[in-house]
Amino acid sequence: MFFNVKTSTEVFKILEKFEPLGDEMLPLEQTLGRVLSRDIIAQEDLPGFSRATMDGYAVRARDTFGATESLPALLDVTGEVIMGQIPAMPVGPGQAVRISTGGMLPENADGVAMVEYCHSLDENTIEVSYTISHLENVIQPGDDLRKGTVILKKGAILRPQDLGVIAGLGQPELRVYKRPKVAIISTGDEVIPIEQNPAPGQIRDINRYSLSALCRQAGAEPISIGLCPDNFEQLRSMVEQGLRAADTVWISGGSSVGTRDLTLKVFESFDNMELLVHGISVRPGKPTIIARINSTLIVGLPGHVASAMIVAQIFLAPFIARLSGWKDISVQLYNHVKAELSRGIESASGRDDYIRIKLDKKEEKLIANPIFGKAGLISTLVEADGLIKIDRNTEGLYQGEDVEVILFNPVKGEFH
Amino acid sequence: MFFNVKTSTEVFKILEKFEPLGDEMLPLEQTLGRVLSRDIIAQEDLPGFSRATMDGYAVRARDTFGATESLPALLDVTGEVIMGQIPAMPVGPGQAVRISTGGMLPENADGVAMVEYCHSLDENTIEVSYTISHLENVIQPGDDLRKGTVILKKGAILRPQDLGVIAGLGQPELRVYKRPKVAIISTGDEVIPIEQNPAPGQIRDINRYSLSALCRQAGAEPISIGLCPDNFEQLRSMVEQGLRAADTVWISGGSSVGTRDLTLKVFESFDNMELLVHGISVRPGKPTIIARINSTLIVGLPGHVASAMIVAQIFLAPFIARLSGWKDISVQLYNHVKAELSRGIESASGRDDYIRIKLDKKEEKLIANPIFGKAGLISTLVEADGLIKIDRNTEGLYQGEDVEVILFNPVKGEFH
Repeated sequence: MFFNVKTSTEVFKILEKFEPLGDEMLPLEQTLGRVLSRDIIAQEDLPGFSRATMDGYAVRARDTFGATESLPALLDVTGEVIMGQIPAMPVGPGQAVRISTGGMLPENADGVAMVEYCHSLDENTIEVSYTISHLENVIQPGDDLRKGTVILKKGAILRPQDLGVIAGLGQPELRVYKRPKVAIISTGDEVIPIEQNPAPGQIRDINRYSLSALCRQAGAEPISIGLCPDNFEQLRSMVEQGLRAADTVWISGGSSVGTRDLTLKVFESFDNMELLVHGISVRPGKPTIIARINSTLIVGLPGHVASAMIVAQIFLAPFIARLSGWKDISVQLYNHVKAELSRGIESASGRDDYIRIKLDKKEEKLIANPIFGKAGLISTLVEADGLIKIDRNTEGLYQGEDVEVILFNPVKGEFH
Repeated sequence: MFFNVKTSTEVFKILEKFEPLGDEMLPLEQTLGRVLSRDIIAQEDLPGFSRATMDGYAVRARDTFGATESLPALLDVTGEVIMGQIPAMPVGPGQAVRISTGGMLPENADGVAMVEYCHSLDENTIEVSYTISHLENVIQPGDDLRKGTVILKKGAILRPQDLGVIAGLGQPELRVYKRPKVAIISTGDEVIPIEQNPAPGQIRDINRYSLSALCRQAGAEPISIGLCPDNFEQLRSMVEQGLRAADTVWISGGSSVGTRDLTLKVFESFDNMELLVHGISVRPGKPTIIARINSTLIVGLPGHVASAMIVAQIFLAPFIARLSGWKDISVQLYNHVKAELSRGIESASGRDDYIRIKLDKKEEKLIANPIFGKAGLISTLVEADGLIKIDRNTEGLYQGEDVEVILFNPVKGEFH
């Protein structure tokens, strides 16, 4: 068998070759966090008419030229702009029309005198005590968005304000990339559903829950195919089910050598299977296998629960981002903080080490405390706030060194 | 009327006085991102039995004492541990039993010899060429979690690995704080549904979409009550509907002075209404009004769409976090990056200014470019990557100064 161990960089390159899924038309309110599959272009000017940005009086600016507190301009108030309606009459020379923020400017008006600087002499007369300049307190058609402008580009991840501007342009639905579906299969003769009480030798199916949650967090829809004993026919049939139901298939659970061999055998039983990765020079996570069956990525995760989670966080969450239309995939998916390493760490060169980190605050400084512990202990991941990566070309890190901590999501409040 | 302008600090203090909502029991797989309302305590040891952490042979460590390559220990292989089962027989003196990672240690075995360091002489005999120490390559009962340990505390925001550990303890459902429901009402005679074509003087209901998305992002469920003209009876009836349906009611939309006065009048028409905030010394966002009707927070947002969004991001997203069980509410909800300010900004003292920022990368440095533009322009928010706050005690910022940028969510890839 061809032994196909890859570096993390090579793995990322392999994953980046997968194209985003197709797109779909969705109601605007369902598109938060989705990725645009086409540019959004303004089909009209926004606003579509001249609006006041202050409460006051719509005026002809020239009528206030030279006005001061001691020599105010006197204007006749001839009416009021009704919100949402076309003003009934134009503003003539020496005239003013009451207007509210957002109101449409009457014909011939080209400025708004703020109510704070106007003094009512009687019902129908005001004094304006300063010079209103042309277009003062006015938004003109197209000031917000001009017809034909590209507002949001293909590949943009939609934020609340982006939905706002699309709403403003009157687009109740739009095209976004589909959310990836991830088929999750747990394996291993020793693994049992979490509702059951394990007999000695048995453990509960943790990965189904941690991996599904990781998928949701990354914007994918997890599909739990089920729990499979170490049996070729059953596992193959579950993988087939996964290939039909999802855009990528992840197998995890059992930690025994039997489970690992079986997973590989099942991969190899598919026509059009291409083994892309057989081992990653990374710790934890070395026994990861990745293949392509037709156009679908299929992954055999390492057996230890903590290793499986770290591999999923480092490689598979970015892969989901890639299928979802993100332009580049990398650990940039996560937030980072700088912290001071509390103790030195040795690391073998030739592989990337991901070290679990618990953050502490000492005065104003963030301290990164490495958590050592066997890869199988999920408690170490619960204790951790994030990971640091020790590059394959480095032999370790010194105590007191500044390190970049990749934060887990959601981040604990105090370390934001 | 009592004019109740507050500083942002005072507003945060007022919002922090609201207690988290009640809790609810949910299936484990629905609790990602939710907040624990009770401590999670291990009800059993994890693992519940001694397990191998490597593939190899379960041995009595003392039988390998002093073994070397030149003088290996010879052991009789008496059988194999079947995954998920209690081993059939104990390991006697001079014996070894084949075991896979995750397998249960047979009685009397206290170490695992890694398969890589064992040499098979024949079917039933191996040579072990190094000394196995007591408990080498073994996880003992309770090594991961000991019965009675508090694993996750009340107030923890649940991450994928946290769901994993809870699954490992066999808890298929758990108690978490409820998700807040937010009633959203748009007002203003000039505001129309987004599907319609605005006549001159009319604008589309942007806030319904941008505010709903912001609620979702903050972990709340938006309930769109509807679009209301500037009419006392209709608005009061919609607010009543909101109070019945949701945990907080947000009114927004119209920018006219008429809408603002009307919102306040509707607030005042409720018995048990306490006006908490009538104006915030912040820009944009000054005309915000906040009241409590019985125990429900009700907010009148400023009319300009961009102002409404910034107020919601700064004050209301943290409020949602508070109702959801977060311990402290502040702008810590967002991620921050340091950047260099590209130009000086003046700011009036006595109020906090929030300036929209577009980030650029110049060589390896992040540059914060202030976006100036009228508060009503939503395009400025679409262009922006985040905000900087100019404190009320500061008169401005200098060009070249390092500033802390509060990033919008989701963050554009390149500025993570």
